Amino acid sequence: MHLVKMHGLGNDFLIIEDHEAQKITSIKDFAISACDRHFGVGGDGVILILPSQKADIRMRIFNSDGSEAEMCGNGIRCLAKYAYERGLVPDPILTVETEAGIIIPEIILEDEKVKSIRVDMGQPRLESGEIPITLDKERIIQEPIEILGKAFYFTAVSMGNPHAVIFEIPDQWQTYGEAIEKHPLFPRKTNVEFVRCLSSNQAEVKVWERGAGPTLACGTGACAVLVAGALNQKLNRKAEIRLPGGSLTIEWSSKNQHVYMEGPAQEVFHAELSEEVYELWTLHRA
Amino acid sequence: MHLVKMHGLGNDFLIIEDHEAQKITSIKDFAISACDRHFGVGGDGVILILPSQKADIRMRIFNSDGSEAEMCGNGIRCLAKYAYERGLVPDPILTVETEAGIIIPEIILEDEKVKSIRVDMGQPRLESGEIPITLDKERIIQEPIEILGKAFYFTAVSMGNPHAVIFEIPDQWQTYGEAIEKHPLFPRKTNVEFVRCLSSNQAEVKVWERGAGPTLACGTGACAVLVAGALNQKLNRKAEIRLPGGSLTIEWSSKNQHVYMEGPAQEVFHAELSEEVYELWTLHRA
Repeated sequence: MHLVKMHGLGNDFLIIEDHEAQKITSIKDFAISACDRHFGVGGDGVILILPSQKADIRMRIFNSDGSEAEMCGNGIRCLAKYAYERGLVPDPILTVETEAGIIIPEIILEDEKVKSIRVDMGQPRLESGEIPITLDKERIIQEPIEILGKAFYFTAVSMGNPHAVIFEIPDQWQTYGEAIEKHPLFPRKTNVEFVRCLSSNQAEVKVWERGAGPTLACGTGACAVLVAGALNQKLNRKAEIRLPGGSLTIEWSSKNQHVYMEGPAQEVFHAELSEEVYELWTLHRA
Repeated sequence: MHLVKMHGLGNDFLIIEDHEAQKITSIKDFAISACDRHFGVGGDGVILILPSQKADIRMRIFNSDGSEAEMCGNGIRCLAKYAYERGLVPDPILTVETEAGIIIPEIILEDEKVKSIRVDMGQPRLESGEIPITLDKERIIQEPIEILGKAFYFTAVSMGNPHAVIFEIPDQWQTYGEAIEKHPLFPRKTNVEFVRCLSSNQAEVKVWERGAGPTLACGTGACAVLVAGALNQKLNRKAEIRLPGGSLTIEWSSKNQHVYMEGPAQEVFHAELSEEVYELWTLHRA
């Protein structure tokens, strides 16, 4: 079986095309085995590129625990670059069917090479009920909250998933992040972004991802930071968001209010699985 | 650049042949970049297969931090299988030049396929000065020691590196392992094995590796457990040692007193690095 490993800011995926994916009997078992970093190929997830009736291609993405994800900003940049460079799509603006609807990534070229990929992440949701957050206010902007005896101010933004953005990076940010994730204000828990603005065009961010803890990069988190920064006059509507795994450029369009995320994707290697693991992973569980 | 990923009980390596390795300007930088599990290929180390004046082939092994290791039991099994299956060596018994001298792995075949690889790990050293351990006794067998308020008995064995073997797996074995590693009795620190004997032919082992903490498998640790078990009449001179990553069969020969380790190696994939990372990793630091 042939596959390609790519990463977007260190969030890494095994890309498999339809004709290869058809050989897999249980994609859940395959993803668990293939993503294992010692016994398998290693990755945060598996991305399948499938034919679509509604778009140029269809993406399905499976986490390393075998569960299916609806969408992933770092993953779709990898998929878009792969599909464009290999001629699976005709244009640098492609339509991708995902479990979260049609997404339209745009390949940004420089000297005929893929420089970055820009993805329309849709409109942010700011109403309390849509975050969701159990506070009787329409929007939650610089709201005080006390966590483990320390006072913070947070702004709540949904990018399809909930985010609490705090313009401060305390020493023990992981400890506070974990406590905020599980705070009763957030009935579906929340992602937490700790932000230091370097200028109105640049911010450094530490992300505590809901259910995952500290990660190298979170696309929706970077979008939420830009929106919260613009709402609080701390950032312009276009800025560079620096995450531990690298930088994303985020723009909140004043025309259609959509948030655009632009960032890189890198191909690491293409590989052929050995016959012995191929049999183990496709025919029965390793 | 072409490479092959293999693992021995989950201890995983990137195998690179001489003609490919010659393209690498700094092997230290390359190993750090290539072993990175998010931005690179991912692995515990890089193994180079080089020509030798003294043996069939020469192995050099680099850890994921770029440092060079003298030898590695799991790594040499991978190398032996690779070299035999690809016809780099004429016989199933091969001679390998390592930084720890000539090692002679033997390929065990079943239906013409490689079933396992048996490696002569040399004679164990039991004298205190050779462990080394600062106790005025010739051998250290079931010696009492108090660690964090709990009483243990340990047996000290050197397989080229120091091991303290304890026939008990306490609940907090990691905590005790870390404390024993750094105990002043061991001037060069020590690996620690916690053992539960299931029968005289089978033992379950948790290994605390010196400088690394809990690992999936430690070849010299499994050898030390068998030797300590035989010295204490808890294990026969040949037994299955079950580690978290899988099992090794260890035999302490009564003829020449050498310890033989037999276990599997698995090829996961062969890969070609993408041009973009190849340039980054071989020409200058990522």
